[in-house]
Amino acid sequence: MTSFILKGDICHSIAPQALQTVQNAYLVCIDGQSAGIFQTLPEQYKGLPLVDYSKHLILPGLTDLHIHAPQFGFRALGMDLELIDWLNTHTFPEEARYADLAYADGAYKSFVQDLRQGPTTRANIFATRHVPATIRLMDLLEHSGLITMVGKVNMDRNAPAPLKEQDASTSLADTQTWLTEVNGRYSRTAPILTPRFIPACSDELMAGLGQLQLQWNLPVQSHLSENKQEITWVKDLVPEAESYAHAYYQHGLFGGNVPTVMAHCVWPDKEELTLMQAQKIWVAHCPQSNMNLSSGIAPIRKFLNLGIPVGLGSDVAGGVHTSIFRAISDAIAVSKLYWRLMDQTTKPLTLEEAFYLATRGGGGFFGKVGSFQAGYDLDALIIDDSTLTPPRESLPLPDRLARVIYLSDNRHIQKKYVQGMELAL
Amino acid sequence: MTSFILKGDICHSIAPQALQTVQNAYLVCIDGQSAGIFQTLPEQYKGLPLVDYSKHLILPGLTDLHIHAPQFGFRALGMDLELIDWLNTHTFPEEARYADLAYADGAYKSFVQDLRQGPTTRANIFATRHVPATIRLMDLLEHSGLITMVGKVNMDRNAPAPLKEQDASTSLADTQTWLTEVNGRYSRTAPILTPRFIPACSDELMAGLGQLQLQWNLPVQSHLSENKQEITWVKDLVPEAESYAHAYYQHGLFGGNVPTVMAHCVWPDKEELTLMQAQKIWVAHCPQSNMNLSSGIAPIRKFLNLGIPVGLGSDVAGGVHTSIFRAISDAIAVSKLYWRLMDQTTKPLTLEEAFYLATRGGGGFFGKVGSFQAGYDLDALIIDDSTLTPPRESLPLPDRLARVIYLSDNRHIQKKYVQGMELAL
Repeated sequence: MTSFILKGDICHSIAPQALQTVQNAYLVCIDGQSAGIFQTLPEQYKGLPLVDYSKHLILPGLTDLHIHAPQFGFRALGMDLELIDWLNTHTFPEEARYADLAYADGAYKSFVQDLRQGPTTRANIFATRHVPATIRLMDLLEHSGLITMVGKVNMDRNAPAPLKEQDASTSLADTQTWLTEVNGRYSRTAPILTPRFIPACSDELMAGLGQLQLQWNLPVQSHLSENKQEITWVKDLVPEAESYAHAYYQHGLFGGNVPTVMAHCVWPDKEELTLMQAQKIWVAHCPQSNMNLSSGIAPIRKFLNLGIPVGLGSDVAGGVHTSIFRAISDAIAVSKLYWRLMDQTTKPLTLEEAFYLATRGGGGFFGKVGSFQAGYDLDALIIDDSTLTPPRESLPLPDRLARVIYLSDNRHIQKKYVQGMELAL
Repeated sequence: MTSFILKGDICHSIAPQALQTVQNAYLVCIDGQSAGIFQTLPEQYKGLPLVDYSKHLILPGLTDLHIHAPQFGFRALGMDLELIDWLNTHTFPEEARYADLAYADGAYKSFVQDLRQGPTTRANIFATRHVPATIRLMDLLEHSGLITMVGKVNMDRNAPAPLKEQDASTSLADTQTWLTEVNGRYSRTAPILTPRFIPACSDELMAGLGQLQLQWNLPVQSHLSENKQEITWVKDLVPEAESYAHAYYQHGLFGGNVPTVMAHCVWPDKEELTLMQAQKIWVAHCPQSNMNLSSGIAPIRKFLNLGIPVGLGSDVAGGVHTSIFRAISDAIAVSKLYWRLMDQTTKPLTLEEAFYLATRGGGGFFGKVGSFQAGYDLDALIIDDSTLTPPRESLPLPDRLARVIYLSDNRHIQKKYVQGMELAL
């Protein structure tokens, strides 16, 4: 059933500053897409099945623009380290275990179950460099009903032996094998090119990935300007690049005709900002990770002012929490500190703006996603917020939304629809 | 029963950098106090009843040094405002409703139930200015088994009419009535003098409270140097005071022989720091509130270096979450941003240090509280972390503690003891 009607209290974003809330309304889904929100049900839809969620909130599903599936198992560990030390101490040894398909299968099942039960409906996911484990992850995600892009990671330098790929040609050959095997295999799961980050990818590998991008016409995800130590390192590794961003750009892996999402962008310099804007780079803002790894605060308001598209990411396990509701409140919180401590001309993000980033902002990377306007894919969360609302009185819808963002957990999610399909929670 | 033995996996703090973890050990409670932790049970305790929590974590209860009970009901609302606007728009109108005892009763029941079910075992609590509602809150807290200090709030200026007290003498007379009524009424609940903050207390009121402090020999709680706008305002209101802190000090309400806890202390100037150190002021560090209200980041490392005692506070509803586990992770996160963005000579708080602040740090305001060393009150949380630990392997105890701090919620708390008494969850 992908044509039906949901009835309830609806909140969604029309624009970053325009939250639309409609009490006791009808949301019509035709073939997995929204046909709009109606206070009175139009005659032509009266034959459709109606699911009554009166007094529940109906929100767009949330998009996680940046999450590492194999890091789910060690969330909260090593949080006293910065990026490079944390990668070497915790991340790389753990990811090396995904050479074992049985291990990967168990761990990825836990990850996918968590994602399915949370508010995320779309996600951009890093796997590891291992082909069989990555395909297993994609199989599990396809089965979950979520819509995701998944990357087999490329990394041929600066990682310990069991995880580092032997050389650029091995990495490229494995990527070709992976892309061939998953080609046409899924309806809800797509491959995305995933050079880990410049420190882990040789020039030869980057050049080869640029070729693969052209051959397969794939989107790209990676990391950009997260941590000061990392940025200095990139300057040493790729001295000819004008900026960290340029190190991707020179291989055709940085926007333009190539849909590209870059995680973090905490410390973009002026040239990088210009290139991000010109190439329409998507920023995956991961505020919790940027705190946990002592990276800093990304200048999100600047990106928005430049028209650079922004969504939110959990960045598990730099971030500890998979819920993008948490990313919304973290994004607001750090934007306030940015305003207070760094630049009082940069206004903090409002609740409406941060909700927009989590829905329509990041959703845009997947197409018409993250809103209930007619023509958008129908990704919806049904939230029972009755235990969050003070029993004594009814709150206005924007206040109920605020309570859900700050105080809800997965127990409040009653149902979840992705492209009109109800998921098993 | 206040003499018994708990068996399980124990974590507690000996000092800020010294976390002690003992697997599968015995924690002996004699008359509500710890007699120590033992790997092998000493002969003399073998007759005591033993409660077997094998494979569970046993942690000290957490202390919330700063929470506003009447603000529990509007958590998450108005978070786009700064302190003074947020007080006028949300806080003061809500607190005015506590003139109605029936309303207060219902709202305080929700608050106390939440506190009872969470990890907090001790708390310093602001009520409102209303005497009957404050006594009702204290009755409910006494019945809960938690050990708390509760303040009827004093505020005779700069608040809207229904909430502001008529004048200093009314405020002082009400405080006298309150203190007389609760005198000797409780075993686990104590009054604490609570001038709201300097902007809400006239000089006459402050002088009178200084007299009441001498008469009743009470501890004091208030707010200090939270928000830049507030600090400027205090300078205008009390021009003769050398600092915000001095405005309390000149009335005998700032440490020395008077145990005093001050919330926030985000922007202490040099004189203030010196006075805080000399007077042994307790800092209630409320990192989430300081983000939510765009206040800034308190310089906790500086306080620790000066020997100023620090604990954590939820500051509901400037903070949204009542759990002090959340305050621990927030304290770590903002200390990393402080290091990165403000002062790279100020090392971030480690997990061990922040856990110390939440237990032994804040617990010290209540006496020998927050540790399992012999002679400390036995406040304990029994945590079932089996769903947090990756099933594939056993984690070392410090890692399990990290998982609990970052990832647990109230469902993981199996039992709670306060001064040796098991609480109904």
